[in-house]
Amino acid sequence: MNYDAVTELALSRGFYFPSCEIYADAQAGFWEYGPLGVALKNRYIELWRRELVRRDGMLEIDGSQIMSKSVFIASGHLDSFNDPIVRCMKCSSVYRADRLVGEVINTVVPERIGDEELYTLIQKHNIRCPKCNGELSKVSRFNMMFKVSIGADGSEAYLRPETCQSIFVDFARLFKVMRCKLPIAIAQVGKSFRNEIAPRQSLIRLREFYQAEIEVFCNPKRLDEIDRFDEVKDVMLRIQDSNGMHEVTASSAVSRGIIPNRLIAYYLALLNEFYSKTGIDMGRTRFRRLADDEKAFYATVAYDFEVETSLGWLELVACNYRSDHDLKGHMQVSKENMEVMDADDGSGNSKVLPHVFELSMGVERSLYCILEHSLYEDMENDRLVLRLKPYLAPIQVGVLPIVKKDEVEAKAKEVFKMLRKDIDAFYDDSGSIGRRYRRLDEIGTPYAITIDRQTLDDGTVTIRDRDTMQQVRVRIDDLKDELLRRLKMP
Amino acid sequence: MNYDAVTELALSRGFYFPSCEIYADAQAGFWEYGPLGVALKNRYIELWRRELVRRDGMLEIDGSQIMSKSVFIASGHLDSFNDPIVRCMKCSSVYRADRLVGEVINTVVPERIGDEELYTLIQKHNIRCPKCNGELSKVSRFNMMFKVSIGADGSEAYLRPETCQSIFVDFARLFKVMRCKLPIAIAQVGKSFRNEIAPRQSLIRLREFYQAEIEVFCNPKRLDEIDRFDEVKDVMLRIQDSNGMHEVTASSAVSRGIIPNRLIAYYLALLNEFYSKTGIDMGRTRFRRLADDEKAFYATVAYDFEVETSLGWLELVACNYRSDHDLKGHMQVSKENMEVMDADDGSGNSKVLPHVFELSMGVERSLYCILEHSLYEDMENDRLVLRLKPYLAPIQVGVLPIVKKDEVEAKAKEVFKMLRKDIDAFYDDSGSIGRRYRRLDEIGTPYAITIDRQTLDDGTVTIRDRDTMQQVRVRIDDLKDELLRRLKMP
Ligand SMILES: [Zn+2]
Ligand SMILES: [Zn+2]
Repeated sequence: MNYDAVTELALSRGFYFPSCEIYADAQAGFWEYGPLGVALKNRYIELWRRELVRRDGMLEIDGSQIMSKSVFIASGHLDSFNDPIVRCMKCSSVYRADRLVGEVINTVVPERIGDEELYTLIQKHNIRCPKCNGELSKVSRFNMMFKVSIGADGSEAYLRPETCQSIFVDFARLFKVMRCKLPIAIAQVGKSFRNEIAPRQSLIRLREFYQAEIEVFCNPKRLDEIDRFDEVKDVMLRIQDSNGMHEVTASSAVSRGIIPNRLIAYYLALLNEFYSKTGIDMGRTRFRRLADDEKAFYATVAYDFEVETSLGWLELVACNYRSDHDLKGHMQVSKENMEVMDADDGSGNSKVLPHVFELSMGVERSLYCILEHSLYEDMENDRLVLRLKPYLAPIQVGVLPIVKKDEVEAKAKEVFKMLRKDIDAFYDDSGSIGRRYRRLDEIGTPYAITIDRQTLDDGTVTIRDRDTMQQVRVRIDDLKDELLRRLKMP
Repeated sequence: MNYDAVTELALSRGFYFPSCEIYADAQAGFWEYGPLGVALKNRYIELWRRELVRRDGMLEIDGSQIMSKSVFIASGHLDSFNDPIVRCMKCSSVYRADRLVGEVINTVVPERIGDEELYTLIQKHNIRCPKCNGELSKVSRFNMMFKVSIGADGSEAYLRPETCQSIFVDFARLFKVMRCKLPIAIAQVGKSFRNEIAPRQSLIRLREFYQAEIEVFCNPKRLDEIDRFDEVKDVMLRIQDSNGMHEVTASSAVSRGIIPNRLIAYYLALLNEFYSKTGIDMGRTRFRRLADDEKAFYATVAYDFEVETSLGWLELVACNYRSDHDLKGHMQVSKENMEVMDADDGSGNSKVLPHVFELSMGVERSLYCILEHSLYEDMENDRLVLRLKPYLAPIQVGVLPIVKKDEVEAKAKEVFKMLRKDIDAFYDDSGSIGRRYRRLDEIGTPYAITIDRQTLDDGTVTIRDRDTMQQVRVRIDDLKDELLRRLKMP
């Protein structure tokens, strides 16, 4: 199914919808999670925590979203986290220059193109304002951070444009109080904020969004010493680089030089294992190795984890080897020493400024891909089915009295009440049973419990499976355990 | 234990610590959750979701933190969400006028005192700048919202000062797409932001903080028609009002007029049940009914759920009957109709603009109280113990090989690996077993698993209980189920 079908479902059933939509001054790029969206996101993050954070023994933090100005002097964001813009000299509309040029001449403009070069392209192709055909200004820069003033004296601070800055700033304290050894990964899920010139496509490009970021701190001399590598050595990875597409195991990717070291291969494999449990069709994913002109300036090696959708390939996770760029920057500006002790190659302990390998995940884009890959039109049975993994489904169980009859309804409410604290259950007695099944199918509810006359006789109910539409009878006494077993994360 | 002991533990073991602390321009009122704090907060919110959201069938949303200017015109925040301040005419220091006056003349200044009245007090008591003894300015107003500019044209927007505004703005859509009937509660947990003049005491008064808010939309004519009231009628409540302290059941509080209606009594009882499962000592809590000069201007009835700590009584939850103040304001400014259909008293359906009863919870203050009430100095055994409920403990299980011996360590690692995805487990082989127990005790880990020589012989391990220090042996095959059973939420 495509973007429009997913959006239609999201809006009509309360997965997500625009923020402040009742007001004329609602700003683009801000969306709300409705009740189904909240539940899907929470389960997604719980799976991320399970398959990445807990599995690898990472530390997780939750830092402030407003951070001091010094943080962004050190990180470089204040100077260089900006987009090239042009302004129409007639109607004053503002455009992202690289995107406008790319769309008009129908090509992908490299991330790190210079302003002069962009303006040359605008002149060469005679690109004008799409709204009024007015002439465009020279290319200038627009900083994408949101500034806030703190306290009565208005000290300058910023909403963080990426969650990882909290991790870098907190690194020295965390390493000490948590008694860490290298390599150690620190994770965070939280909001980031970017003042995009042209937010678009609902969850795809937002001004306020959730990131789930992992920063792996490591000794650059020991990138092949990963104890746990064996656990993932046979994980199949799909890697695209300048030599084409490779479908290889993690271990052969390293031995054949497709991935430069075991540390990177290990974390890409963990990430791959995680996504394979989200319901995204892994045959439509790839790790794309970035060329030099696509990489962030601090990255020495970079892969984008991408998923194919009706909107084209979407970047879900940026996997960057950031070297010591971040810690070095914060160390210089703060004067705080961020070196730590690490066992040297046999010759005793020595100080090292850790390097960082990062997995920076966009949560909303991931959820969007899960929805698009899961939504399915079952022509044969004339129904729309959201084939979510049971452990990710927002409503896990529907409880449906099959007839409007006092004793049946009373029994159904009793079953509902028994389940509701441990399971996200929904009680529905309105409309035909067929319609009630359809409504549950399209929001991905994996199981529907029906209570009927037989229930009153023998204390059994039926469990209907969303995908097969098969029903089995189970005893009410066994129902909760049976459901919890089926809903368990893998 | 007191505030200092809790802070010392929080800092030294990574529950929470100041944000941007390595920088000189770090701002007061911003704190980070470290790994133990994140886990405690997540479990606390999961309990809130279980005991309030799921139990009552509430809807949960997650809205944008940045909201349009119109929202705060309608809510009244732009005009009146401000603190009275005075500035020193000599050194330019700024103070919250009401708090400064309160401290100097040692009394509680009412929330709704006027600026003139405050200045009269300043003059009468000859209050001067605490820093330089300079003369103070007249009282002026400082708006506590953080402003942000959106897009290239800098449209005005604000970080929300309370999460509930998302709920009000989204109400009409949610009521429709979720097929609601009154009364319906909508909940949200998320960040709010207030530009406090004088943030203080770590988690107690923050500029950026988590709220868990519940807005109950109801028909004001039907506040005594609550089906589920019977479930809570016997819950004991401690209510303080102008007549003194009442320890009464929810139902007798209503019948004796201590609480004005069943709807309010029902939600106060749910809240009470929730907190009784957090480990807070309920004997040191109360619902304090606010006098008229303490209430927010829109509240017709208001209770603060308060907890006694070493810092005095802290307000954890503001429970306000907000009438139709919020929906009416948004309806007037947006022109969006927010009336909904409700079954009238027997005479068929009719339109009603719902009233709102709110439970506005401060998450950080709640966590602080849990920590303070749980921290305990066990003199007899010379240890500090954080007696958290097992289902709230950040690290749930420690895995400790009792001797440094290859086979024992290998077996311990195997046990750890078996548990780690389902349970927050921590492997620790450094230091004496006594020291390792102590370290786990002080962060509240309820169970320590020890692996010893006998484990190698018979496949059993010991489970040590944090509070009793008793040990029992269980088979490794049964260990995970046994632990999951003990860690289950009630
Ligand atoms: Zn134009
Ligand atoms: Zn002064």
